[in-house]
Amino acid sequence: MTVRVFQDYYPDEFAHCYGCGRLNKEGLQIKSHWDGKESICHYTPMPHHTGGFPGYVYGGLIASLIDCHAAATASAAKLRDEGLSLEDLPLPRFVSASLKVDFLKPTPMGKVLELRGMVKEIKNRKIIVSVTVSAEGQISAKGEVVMVQLPESGK
Amino acid sequence: MTVRVFQDYYPDEFAHCYGCGRLNKEGLQIKSHWDGKESICHYTPMPHHTGGFPGYVYGGLIASLIDCHAAATASAAKLRDEGLSLEDLPLPRFVSASLKVDFLKPTPMGKVLELRGMVKEIKNRKIIVSVTVSAEGQISAKGEVVMVQLPESGK
Repeated sequence: MTVRVFQDYYPDEFAHCYGCGRLNKEGLQIKSHWDGKESICHYTPMPHHTGGFPGYVYGGLIASLIDCHAAATASAAKLRDEGLSLEDLPLPRFVSASLKVDFLKPTPMGKVLELRGMVKEIKNRKIIVSVTVSAEGQISAKGEVVMVQLPESGK
Repeated sequence: MTVRVFQDYYPDEFAHCYGCGRLNKEGLQIKSHWDGKESICHYTPMPHHTGGFPGYVYGGLIASLIDCHAAATASAAKLRDEGLSLEDLPLPRFVSASLKVDFLKPTPMGKVLELRGMVKEIKNRKIIVSVTVSAEGQISAKGEVVMVQLPESGK
């Protein structure tokens, strides 16, 4: 069975994001799904995603993963909050109003990164998502993203 | 005359960052230099750097540019603060402790982006840099980055 992920439900016109668009062939194509109340995303950085400090991931990738995973989490959370499933409506599309990342320790290259998203607040078209990034169980970064639903997207 | 940029002065071992390393052939290779008291960086996003909203840049790239331009600005500011020029010492290398980005409006694709960095605070190994991102004179994002000097780098 193939598990469909949040990004599979983005309408085609909103599915070209470099970080999370399934239709962007050169992009990261991250994939997010529910794991109980939290959302989860696994991503393995490519060898060229190294940072200024040898052997560790560059901060911009960490920020990108947090941002895009939070956007997908907000979209799915909006439906879930209304008692709907991913199959019921085109997924509403959120963009970031603000992004905050705390880099707690260097994130090692060569590992599967796990991002976990938690919805902190849902208020009309605004959703706040917090995200942790970990490798082998060690949290290396935390983020908080304020997402706003695109007016063109969803009801 | 070829103008040397901050990133030209990173020691080789710290010059592989995907965002700003001159030795990362697959990376963004951003270039930063002083423009009076501010630092400046111009970067034109590639066509695949599109965001979830068609015609606009994805947030992760904005965050990456801010992060790496702030790192370079911190490195150069550290030398300047000590009355030294870029030629005097290997450039000390900074990494981000935290990154905050406010996305004020969508950043359009197909334009040269201008990043301007301003040093807000220098205290020993910690430097705070604020950055604006604009296209055609319109500021679309603002960032603030807390940078910390790598112990292995510089004096």
